[in-house]
Formats: sequence, C-alpha cells, structure tokens
Amino acid sequence: MNTLSFHPLSGIPDVTTGCCLPQLLWDALAVSEVTPQPGDILVVTHKILSKAAGQVRNLSAVTPSEQAYAIAERVGKDPRLTEVILSCADTVYACDRGILIAERRDGWICCNAGVDASNAGGRDTVVLLPEDCDTQARDISRSLTAQCGFPIPVVICDTHGRALRSGTVGVAVGCFGLDPIRRYTGAADRDGRQLVSTQEAVADEIAGAATLVMGQGSEGIPAVLVRGFAPSFLETDAADLRLPKERQLYQIQGEAFSKK
Amino acid sequence: MNTLSFHPLSGIPDVTTGCCLPQLLWDALAVSEVTPQPGDILVVTHKILSKAAGQVRNLSAVTPSEQAYAIAERVGKDPRLTEVILSCADTVYACDRGILIAERRDGWICCNAGVDASNAGGRDTVVLLPEDCDTQARDISRSLTAQCGFPIPVVICDTHGRALRSGTVGVAVGCFGLDPIRRYTGAADRDGRQLVSTQEAVADEIAGAATLVMGQGSEGIPAVLVRGFAPSFLETDAADLRLPKERQLYQIQGEAFSKK
Repeated sequence: MNTLSFHPLSGIPDVTTGCCLPQLLWDALAVSEVTPQPGDILVVTHKILSKAAGQVRNLSAVTPSEQAYAIAERVGKDPRLTEVILSCADTVYACDRGILIAERRDGWICCNAGVDASNAGGRDTVVLLPEDCDTQARDISRSLTAQCGFPIPVVICDTHGRALRSGTVGVAVGCFGLDPIRRYTGAADRDGRQLVSTQEAVADEIAGAATLVMGQGSEGIPAVLVRGFAPSFLETDAADLRLPKERQLYQIQGEAFSKK
Repeated sequence: MNTLSFHPLSGIPDVTTGCCLPQLLWDALAVSEVTPQPGDILVVTHKILSKAAGQVRNLSAVTPSEQAYAIAERVGKDPRLTEVILSCADTVYACDRGILIAERRDGWICCNAGVDASNAGGRDTVVLLPEDCDTQARDISRSLTAQCGFPIPVVICDTHGRALRSGTVGVAVGCFGLDPIRRYTGAADRDGRQLVSTQEAVADEIAGAATLVMGQGSEGIPAVLVRGFAPSFLETDAADLRLPKERQLYQIQGEAFSKK
C-alpha cells in the first residue's frame, strides 16, 4: 500500500437548516489545496448533516415526559436532554453518573443516542444524530460523483466511547460507495496459512483518523478528503458495522427502559 | 491542522528471536522514501516485538492443563491454544463459539489474551502479545531519538474487536512519547461553550489508520511513519487507555474462569 493521507477541508461556512450540503462540500473541494482524484474518499462529520436537515433542538423548548423525568433523576441528567434522547431511541440503559446508553431505531447503540451539545450552534442547543446517515452519504456521494466524473465514496463519522477503553474515537455511522469491512476470508498470510475470520472495520479506521484531523473543539473542519486507500466502488452502506445481537459478547450494565 | 499522512515502511526483513528491532526500524527509515522529521510518530505492530523477544509458542510443544481442557471443551477451541492463553491471563471469559475474552496481567482485556496465529511464522505457531509494550515502545523511541537527534514517539498496535461493532480495528497496546488521550477539558467549542469531558483516544485513532496501511494478510508492513499530528513529547505510556473497572459500562457475557 502507498501513503495514506487525510486532507482537511477548510473554508466550509457554518451550516444552517436548508443548506445544500453537497454543494458546500463541492465548493470546499474546489478551493482546497487538494483536488479530488479517483480512489479518494470524503469523510463528513454527522453534525453538519444534522444541521442542514434541521435536526437540532433547543432544550428550552422541550417539555420532558414523566418517563424522562424518572430516568433523568435516576442518573443525574437534564430531563430535557433525556426527553430528546428518548425521542431518538427505542431503549435507553441508565448507567449511572449522568450516562445513558441508547439503542436508536436505526440500530446504532451509543451514548445519549448520539445527541450532542458540542458545536451545536448555541449554549442550550443539541444536535441529533441523523436518522438516515447512509442515505445522506449516498446523496453526497452521487452529487460529488456527478461533479467529478468519477465515484467519490463518502463516510459519515461520529465519535463514540468504547466498552473497555478510555476516550472516544471517530467511527462510521453511515457510508456509501465502499465496503465498510475488509474481509480476509480465504486470503493467506505470509506463512501461507488461510485467514479464516479476519474482518477489518476499515470505515471505522478511516473515520477515526479523519476525526484526528477534524478535532472536537473549535477547529471548524467538518470534512476530510482521504487519499491512498482507494477502495473498490460498491453501492453498500454502513449496516455491516452493526454487530447483530446474537453475536454480542458484552452486555450493557444498567437498567433498560423501553420507550413508553 | 495540516494534512495527516501514514507512510508504510517496507523492506523490514522477517523478524526472528534476538533481532535488534530499533536497528531494523532505523535501517528501514533510512532507506524509506520518507525521512523522519520532528513531530513524526512511528507505529510498530506488536507482532515483531514479540518475535524479536521470542514470545512465540509452537502448539505441538504445549501440554494443556486440566483447566485448559475444560475451558476448551466449553467453547470448542484447541486445548493447546487455550493453555497458551491461560498462561498470559489472570481471568478468562468463555463466550461460546470458540471465543475467549481474557484479562491479561498487564490489564488489557482482549480476545485470546492477544495470542494470535496469523503471520506467526509457521502453521502451528502462535505469537503472544508482549507483556511490556510500553517499555518496548520507550526503548525503540529512545534508540530512534538518539539516531535522529529529535524525539520520535512510538505507538505499538494490535487489532481488537469491539463490544457493539463488527470487525476489528487497530488500537494502541503500548506507547511512549505522546499522551494517548487528547483532553479538551476547559477548551471551548465554536459556540464558546466549555467542553467538560471530551477526551479523544488519539493513540487508538493513529493505530487504527496505521493498521489500514499495514493490512492483516501477507502485506509485510510492520511499521508506519505518521506525519502531521505532531504531539507534544511526553514521557507517558498507554496506561490511560485502559478504562478502570469502576467506570466500565459493559460487562463481558460468559463464564469467568480465574487461573488455577
């Protein structure tokens, strides 16, 4: 493999409801120091997708349900934020110390159902994780592909905590145009030994390094062009990254609440 | 942030017991297409550390204990491999379908205690995860620093599965010379809102992208030079990446066996 590089796209203005995101990204690519080439991948943070789609809530306008109050009191959390999380989730696990782990309707299991207050656009504002990251990845990919004349796969990233390790890392919560898993089944290692089950979550590794470039503070870099991985173009989404329940080796501690 | 790039170091010969790894890596850097610069980080797969240190076992020479036979039968696994895993672990969780999750004496919790058969150097051979990845990272870093005249932080990587997501990703199992966590506490986002708890596991994100470049088949790229992240040089190790038990939100399914 050649050098793998991650190029920040700067100059993307603050995204607000109704922005045409594919056009904003194309404009940013056009003025960036790196011109797209065949094999490049674009990583976009979920946050600007949500903002463009109006998936933003002002907590001062939220009226918590009784269930939200009960769960919020259990873990010591803002009941209004808890209400927003419940609106995105089928099941919430109350894990103590202000932490809710939620299973969203689209199958992602993550802290606060992906609801996030940082860089939300205001002090009492939160941004939801889009419900259709794969579809939005597809729309951006198709738009950029039409402009470039060659396919540009797109990965949508968020930052998630992990079961056994400290800190968060960037992961893929949506993609289009590449297989999120690199499968070694049938391939041989250097000893000629067949690899049986090796599957590498390449979309997550790409999202993680793009997150390094984006930062999580005031950097203002919501998109990163990735060069050097050059995946085969496939009309796939990120669903294969969700581990089916029957294969889970870990269970979430804490009480499970189904949405009333 | 500028462009972040991952440069494969090729030309590293097969590593065998007694090899001087820092010298091999320095030689590879000297002939590579990229000359080290201040701010660069070197990522090295744990496997060549183990091979250099003779941390390799031939299963035909292993006599399983009664406990290894019992656990192996429970999950359908080779009793000899189970014995090797037990030799590296304090506690093993039997999780069904051939899967053991093990807590190693050094605190890492991972599948098979990090014992790995791929690219082990022979069909009946397995490679252990080194017990002292941080120390080895420090030794390599100090050696390269002495050669270069400026500090080169080192990250030791392995590939791990995740609790809720399919596939494996590269993670840091040792490091020296950089803080493995980027802490945003006290920093402000774009709205001027203080970030309270954001902590990014940057060493894991670096290890993940380096693993993309290394591959897991017959690629033969055990080291990757990372340019563009340029961390402050700190004499830290990877311990902060291990989530303390009292902060765990997930528990391992399956029966726990303590080593007899």
